[in-house]
Amino acid sequence: MTQVENFFPGLDGVIASETKISFLDTVQGQIVMKGYDLIELSKQYRYLDIVHLLLEDKLPNQEEKRKLENKLKSYYKVQEAIYEVFKLLPKQTHPMDALRTGISFISGYDDDIDNRALDANKERAYRLLGTIPNIVANSYRILTNQELVQPDQELSYSANFYYMITGQKPTDLQEKIFDLSLVLYSEHEMPNSTFTSRVIASTQSDLYGALTGAVASLKGNLHGGANEAVMHMLLEAETVEEFEALLETKLLNKEKIMGFGHRVYMKKIDPRALMMKEALKELSEIKGDDLLLRMCEAGERLMEREKGLYPNLDYYAAPVYWMLGIPIPLYTPIFFGSRTVGLCAHVIEQHDNNRLFRPRVHYTGERHAVSK
Amino acid sequence: MTQVENFFPGLDGVIASETKISFLDTVQGQIVMKGYDLIELSKQYRYLDIVHLLLEDKLPNQEEKRKLENKLKSYYKVQEAIYEVFKLLPKQTHPMDALRTGISFISGYDDDIDNRALDANKERAYRLLGTIPNIVANSYRILTNQELVQPDQELSYSANFYYMITGQKPTDLQEKIFDLSLVLYSEHEMPNSTFTSRVIASTQSDLYGALTGAVASLKGNLHGGANEAVMHMLLEAETVEEFEALLETKLLNKEKIMGFGHRVYMKKIDPRALMMKEALKELSEIKGDDLLLRMCEAGERLMEREKGLYPNLDYYAAPVYWMLGIPIPLYTPIFFGSRTVGLCAHVIEQHDNNRLFRPRVHYTGERHAVSK
Repeated sequence: MTQVENFFPGLDGVIASETKISFLDTVQGQIVMKGYDLIELSKQYRYLDIVHLLLEDKLPNQEEKRKLENKLKSYYKVQEAIYEVFKLLPKQTHPMDALRTGISFISGYDDDIDNRALDANKERAYRLLGTIPNIVANSYRILTNQELVQPDQELSYSANFYYMITGQKPTDLQEKIFDLSLVLYSEHEMPNSTFTSRVIASTQSDLYGALTGAVASLKGNLHGGANEAVMHMLLEAETVEEFEALLETKLLNKEKIMGFGHRVYMKKIDPRALMMKEALKELSEIKGDDLLLRMCEAGERLMEREKGLYPNLDYYAAPVYWMLGIPIPLYTPIFFGSRTVGLCAHVIEQHDNNRLFRPRVHYTGERHAVSK
Repeated sequence: MTQVENFFPGLDGVIASETKISFLDTVQGQIVMKGYDLIELSKQYRYLDIVHLLLEDKLPNQEEKRKLENKLKSYYKVQEAIYEVFKLLPKQTHPMDALRTGISFISGYDDDIDNRALDANKERAYRLLGTIPNIVANSYRILTNQELVQPDQELSYSANFYYMITGQKPTDLQEKIFDLSLVLYSEHEMPNSTFTSRVIASTQSDLYGALTGAVASLKGNLHGGANEAVMHMLLEAETVEEFEALLETKLLNKEKIMGFGHRVYMKKIDPRALMMKEALKELSEIKGDDLLLRMCEAGERLMEREKGLYPNLDYYAAPVYWMLGIPIPLYTPIFFGSRTVGLCAHVIEQHDNNRLFRPRVHYTGERHAVSK
């Protein structure tokens, strides 16, 4: 690589934005969200608390939380035309691509789309949060020739999301763990998808466009697609020993092993992964089947020993979603559904204090004169 | 603003990528494209030559150019389902949002979407280039309750694009000038939309997703949306004097005036704008009506005198498209159609030598302990 001033491959180490939303404090080992430690939040609060915190800047009291839930419920229903679009999708369409098309499509229903003022953007964020479970669940149902499912206003936000995806109302434990996964996925500083949405928003483009780009980003298997890749890897083995052998073979072949390592954490387990590992233990006990847990733990030890790499959230979220009965192709769309609130907070912050992103390049090609 | 190490607001001055595609040589005042000066290219070559140059790394001979044109023509037709999706769009949908939905939707027809190898990506780029005029033209026609128009295989690529948009076969001069605009818009280093597409592609997400994000970016009025904003501004005045008064008022009110200035050029007219200004002169002569030209020139002088700002491409492309009879809401979609080739070249280059984009933030919020 040539030495060029101000060239930062992958923007590694570059600070791209000021933000009051979140950051990864690697010194104190905290994921800071609106001032709080995400892990501590996740032990005491639910997803709707986090939504209120991220969009209204404070943890809600009971009354505020009830109002928020009612607002989201008022946006549960979608226009029938959206289902018609999903019916037109070729059946081989990737669920993330269906989600992307759905979010792109619904922008046309916004009568005030050019209004980027704070209140308009917030209302838009709530509308999206209300709609996302329906879009995630029913786009997949249509692609896989299942019956549509309608939102159930009696259930909590998370329970309804789970219900629309699986067709089953969750037990208390299932609801608690699914909600916890939404909390943990809700916001995480400046990963590629969040950066994408801020870059797009910086042209004064709208929230739907910014989120459409974020879906595209999150689909990539170096990003959100990793949780699905982890599950496929786990399913290739039937015993702990087979899983260890599989990882050894991949290491020998210098294949990238999904679910390990993270640009920012590096030298310890992602604290969110620890929370999901605990959830996996609970689910394993209830089910009386801890095979997936033992496979994951063996893989964790092996990767630490062989590569000094530690699990990230995707590594333990994948088997948790499996034990919750969630179809694998929905792991990444659910990640996006949860992250919608973080993305909206970032787009709102970008619109509120904007500077167009416009970096430069280092040209390494040739120079010619034009002749004909 | 706090002094923070490695904080680059808007990534101003940051080199985000190495590239062999293009760069803005501000020292020599050249837009370098695959080694050539874009302005010199634009005087001797046509859009399809540029497509070949950007995707095949060389200017084509006659045989290569014929093959390229045939390949694009083989992709002119789209699946009927796409028109059905456009019919479902709410009529108030922005044409850029319709285009975004269209590109997102067609990803489902790609049987080999996970293949990011060079050849697969190139074929995908040609398919997109063949399809874009149809998507741009017919999404707008459906939104505005016009009849669909089918591509005409007898016309050149640019003439067919013009025909599908306007419903009229172009004169030789119209074809020449429309093609020139496509050449000038085809590629331009690392503007926000190109950066967006590379950021998305760096997660190993696919070309459709990267381009979907780029449409969202280009829609913003700090980016591609500027050409439409310029035309609306010109139409607010009926004489040169009224236009000057309008600009004076906007300057007094500290409103941003679209079509002037550019992060990278700064101190002289965008050389692409000069080419479009010449085209505007030709069209004005033929039509025997030079009002728009005189208004633009007066605005150019005024902005140089008052603000030291110079026209960019959008400033002169807007009146040229007006005199070509192109509907204003299609100015930005056409810009995207032309830029598709540049975006594809960048995504291919990113996939070919990838590093995930993942910057950091400077956290300026508070810190709290969690309590309940």
